[in-house]
Amino acid sequence: MKTYEEILKGIHPADAEAVKAAEEYMDCLIKPLGSLGKLETMAIKMAGITGQVKNAPEKRCSIVMVADNEICEEGVSGSPQDITVMLTEHMAKGVCGMGTLSAYANADIKIVDLGIRTDVDNPGIINRKIRYGAANFAKEPAMTREEAIRAIEVGIEMVGKAVEEGYQILGTGEMGIGNTSSTSAILMCLTGLSAEVAVGKGGGLTDEALIHKKEVITRALELHRPDPQDPIDVLSKVGGLDIAGMAGCFLAAAYYRVPIVIDGVISAVAALVAYRINPAVKDFMFSSHHSIEPAYDLIMKELGMEPILNLDMRLGEGTGCPLAFHIIGSACYMMSHMYTFEQFQHDQTYRIDLRK
Amino acid sequence: MKTYEEILKGIHPADAEAVKAAEEYMDCLIKPLGSLGKLETMAIKMAGITGQVKNAPEKRCSIVMVADNEICEEGVSGSPQDITVMLTEHMAKGVCGMGTLSAYANADIKIVDLGIRTDVDNPGIINRKIRYGAANFAKEPAMTREEAIRAIEVGIEMVGKAVEEGYQILGTGEMGIGNTSSTSAILMCLTGLSAEVAVGKGGGLTDEALIHKKEVITRALELHRPDPQDPIDVLSKVGGLDIAGMAGCFLAAAYYRVPIVIDGVISAVAALVAYRINPAVKDFMFSSHHSIEPAYDLIMKELGMEPILNLDMRLGEGTGCPLAFHIIGSACYMMSHMYTFEQFQHDQTYRIDLRK
Repeated sequence: MKTYEEILKGIHPADAEAVKAAEEYMDCLIKPLGSLGKLETMAIKMAGITGQVKNAPEKRCSIVMVADNEICEEGVSGSPQDITVMLTEHMAKGVCGMGTLSAYANADIKIVDLGIRTDVDNPGIINRKIRYGAANFAKEPAMTREEAIRAIEVGIEMVGKAVEEGYQILGTGEMGIGNTSSTSAILMCLTGLSAEVAVGKGGGLTDEALIHKKEVITRALELHRPDPQDPIDVLSKVGGLDIAGMAGCFLAAAYYRVPIVIDGVISAVAALVAYRINPAVKDFMFSSHHSIEPAYDLIMKELGMEPILNLDMRLGEGTGCPLAFHIIGSACYMMSHMYTFEQFQHDQTYRIDLRK
Repeated sequence: MKTYEEILKGIHPADAEAVKAAEEYMDCLIKPLGSLGKLETMAIKMAGITGQVKNAPEKRCSIVMVADNEICEEGVSGSPQDITVMLTEHMAKGVCGMGTLSAYANADIKIVDLGIRTDVDNPGIINRKIRYGAANFAKEPAMTREEAIRAIEVGIEMVGKAVEEGYQILGTGEMGIGNTSSTSAILMCLTGLSAEVAVGKGGGLTDEALIHKKEVITRALELHRPDPQDPIDVLSKVGGLDIAGMAGCFLAAAYYRVPIVIDGVISAVAALVAYRINPAVKDFMFSSHHSIEPAYDLIMKELGMEPILNLDMRLGEGTGCPLAFHIIGSACYMMSHMYTFEQFQHDQTYRIDLRK
């Protein structure tokens, strides 16, 4: 297994030559230039990731990081913490939202316990427990710096394993009651945004509870003063084990040069953490669906990305990834199988230039 | 084959009981209420169409209506008219955008010649030619009222045939250089919108040519003064055979109670024509991708719909439909296979109410 330090040294931007070749090839296909919009840019981006003009990312897997968050003690979540383990065990059976949507997309799921607050003995859940839940960061740091790096390294391990197993595209997901609180805290610290903008209702809060959640997070940031220039410091003081694990997935995807899909706002903040560690990781990321949490748009703006699906979803779990797999797969298939102008003209007795 | 009049008499709204049953079932699934957003509303809408709570619209077909438009004589299009037949023949080989995206979605295509300006002898193209291109509506009506109804009835025939063949979800597409001009003319007439808002660049026009296109369409509407209360009058005076054919598809989908997907702005204006003929057809329509033509948003607003994909595509051909098939299929699969709270609780020793 690669260490965090090894991964950092081995991240390089997309293959510029492959991108150029893919752009040129795309403009040879029988359609007005650019008329397939983001399908074109996705297929070209894929070329930059793999170094090949034509791709078929059909072997798919999402990595779902699970951990509890003792910040729930502060009353920042609408759901009891026990939900984390219960839904995770059901995810392992494939009967939840993520399970059904992944099955339909012919995508596998690796479910990783990074910090469920109870012991879990389930063959469908990979045990990499670092601690029993991130600590209540309203009172103490969520975890130590070493624990944050260990969580990142679990992400690295999982991506390495998935690549070894032949997966050609990855998704990211999470499960962990209370994790929108760490999401907002990380975002506020990294970007300087106020709680008004960065804190949302998560899985479902009353207006009153939302005000309380904003106060709890604002006070926690005043207590710990994490260093915005040091994303690991931010993760360890106000983050969650799931977010650290997903950040590791994004870093490792760039290292192994495999495409990786962002789900909703929690996975997006993990992508932002990885991007702040090394901006080149952006070249390996794909967006999926638009999240109604206001922080999502702000993160996409910094990453220079836009969501491709507009479904008003707010379930988490990684549910945007299997949906995006269909569209990214469509983009790559189109690029690989559409006629070029040259093929087109071979079949015709006259030549017409469609490229305007 | 059913006539236009027969179809009109047999259109009824969605099955309200099935919708209610589907809504109740959806709220029994293990997720916070409404957290799967439009995936939920799509699966529920499907129940209203078929009368069944659980659906699996896996047998898929798009109907692509093809016709020329002699309005091109006025210099309103950036592409030569010969492109219509050339791209249609390539679509029949499956090598264009629509062909590749449909193949990836495991969807068939029925390509129908309603009015290509030349004779076409191709086993992959269904010959239902009504005339050699719609007339130049800058000078004379695009077609007679009888021709418009015949084009609608071809749409009805194709949907009837597709239903007989067991297709469970349909898409609509078109091919016809010049058809964004009739799209804009129909829209301006039906809604009272100005050319500034309703006329776009279509497949690709210069700024100067766009001004000319607006003038041509505005003058044509002044010349013919179609009756906005009579959609058939509008279709015959400034419409296209492809748009009339697609309007027939939307009407017939409602009659046969089968879901049908709108592609971009041209297919959307055909949906609007059908909706103006009978508003109940809306219950059977699904959106696909957002079109950058400004008219698209205006039509969706009247239909009370929103696109689910945001891909900046402007190719037409029906390319949004195979992409939407993946997402609509995902929605139905999720609803059919996710656990209910009851199943969930059977597996647990304690009860928790996630439904907040």
